Amino acid sequence: MSDTPDFARLEAFALELAAAAGAAALPLFRTGLDTDNKLAHLSRFDPVTEADKGAERAIRALINRHFPDHGIIGEEYGEENTDAEFVWVLDPVDGTRAFISGLPLWTTLIGLRHRGRPVLGVIAQPYLQEVFLGSPLGSRLITPRGDVPLRVRGCVGLHDAVIGTTDPNLFPGIEGEAYGSLLKAVKLARYGCDAYAFAMVAMGTMDIALETGLKPWDIEAIIPVIENAGGVVTDWRGEPVPDTAGQVIAGSSRELVEAALEHLKGAAST
Amino acid sequence: MSDTPDFARLEAFALELAAAAGAAALPLFRTGLDTDNKLAHLSRFDPVTEADKGAERAIRALINRHFPDHGIIGEEYGEENTDAEFVWVLDPVDGTRAFISGLPLWTTLIGLRHRGRPVLGVIAQPYLQEVFLGSPLGSRLITPRGDVPLRVRGCVGLHDAVIGTTDPNLFPGIEGEAYGSLLKAVKLARYGCDAYAFAMVAMGTMDIALETGLKPWDIEAIIPVIENAGGVVTDWRGEPVPDTAGQVIAGSSRELVEAALEHLKGAAST
Repeated sequence: MSDTPDFARLEAFALELAAAAGAAALPLFRTGLDTDNKLAHLSRFDPVTEADKGAERAIRALINRHFPDHGIIGEEYGEENTDAEFVWVLDPVDGTRAFISGLPLWTTLIGLRHRGRPVLGVIAQPYLQEVFLGSPLGSRLITPRGDVPLRVRGCVGLHDAVIGTTDPNLFPGIEGEAYGSLLKAVKLARYGCDAYAFAMVAMGTMDIALETGLKPWDIEAIIPVIENAGGVVTDWRGEPVPDTAGQVIAGSSRELVEAALEHLKGAAST
Repeated sequence: MSDTPDFARLEAFALELAAAAGAAALPLFRTGLDTDNKLAHLSRFDPVTEADKGAERAIRALINRHFPDHGIIGEEYGEENTDAEFVWVLDPVDGTRAFISGLPLWTTLIGLRHRGRPVLGVIAQPYLQEVFLGSPLGSRLITPRGDVPLRVRGCVGLHDAVIGTTDPNLFPGIEGEAYGSLLKAVKLARYGCDAYAFAMVAMGTMDIALETGLKPWDIEAIIPVIENAGGVVTDWRGEPVPDTAGQVIAGSSRELVEAALEHLKGAAST
């Protein structure tokens, strides 16, 4: 028996998981609009929470049925069997604030660890019918119009770089100063993207994405998509992203990430 | 002859304009990705400029053919016949930075002035196949899945409000202080939206959108979409948006806009 995982089979299964999550979450996106919205904030029905939980239940049911020996770490329903050879790491709705605001840039993140290392990932946006998939077989964008290989833009200088993060005000204290310094050094910053900015780095339309305070399920699905598109993901010290996540930067090249880290490393956690 | 414009006919024509603009701009979105991107920044080909110009040319050609007595104000190709009874006000690609970054929240804005007043507007996103249309016949979201009436969320308090703007760093000096004060008073802020945030106010998923330094083509298409969905658009003094645009706020109710203006009016232009 080969020691190499059957990535073609695992890719197909990850796409099945993404489809199930989308089927659970998408019907709740932009809902409540036809009802008496003046009362909506008094009601206990919370569409994004229902979407989050429903999508994770759908994913977990499929994993338990088809790969009962695999472990799971999910944002909503916790951990099971995390010492398994394969562990799925799930954020059913990343970008809950985008979801709440009606903005179609929230995503479903499905990562797979093999022996502790992120090896396969899916960033899916069901309203856009987009799935960004990465594994040792390569990275590609899958849409109803076909598949497109994902490739980072390559080695632009920091002064030419387009960077993305969710909210510049999410960097507190010295992280905020470090971000401000980086912002002055780049060409353009875009906000409001959550994981979608990382997908844009893999696609080659943005050059750097960075966040702080991430949890494992916020980043583990992203790492294989970026790395197999030719990019680099590290923490703010330039080291591999730890199991605990935290401060993360992704870039289109090692050189570009190193140039950005010159601004960030003073605020890096030890 | 009635003095009332034939809004059904004008709506249909505005949708035709949006389709033509999308056909010109969309093929250039996310392009250059398959070419040698390391050289892209050295090339003189600029997809967003080509998209902007091509879309405006397509719109102007249709107006000149079908309504040769109408005036036009466009971001790319200037003014013609602006004293006409009907004047089209065009921003073929609003959100050029989103376009550059591969983010599908740029829009085509097509507004129509009747005797100096914005009466009809289209906010179109061709990648999403979404058209937000507003006129005295009502506001609606048009997609391949059908039409949905647009209705603002109604009168939430400021502490429950979801607000949107493009970039908090775009508010300089006292405008930045005013924005910071507003930010502390609301529930949630989202960034990176350009005109799309205003469409979300009309749809009832966001409550306030605000910008500064707008040009007429950035806002005139938006006003009829918001107003005919039950919302309010003013400048930062609470007055109707002037022909020159500038500081703009849109909200789901007069009361909510007034509450936000308590934070902004100290920074309002006179």
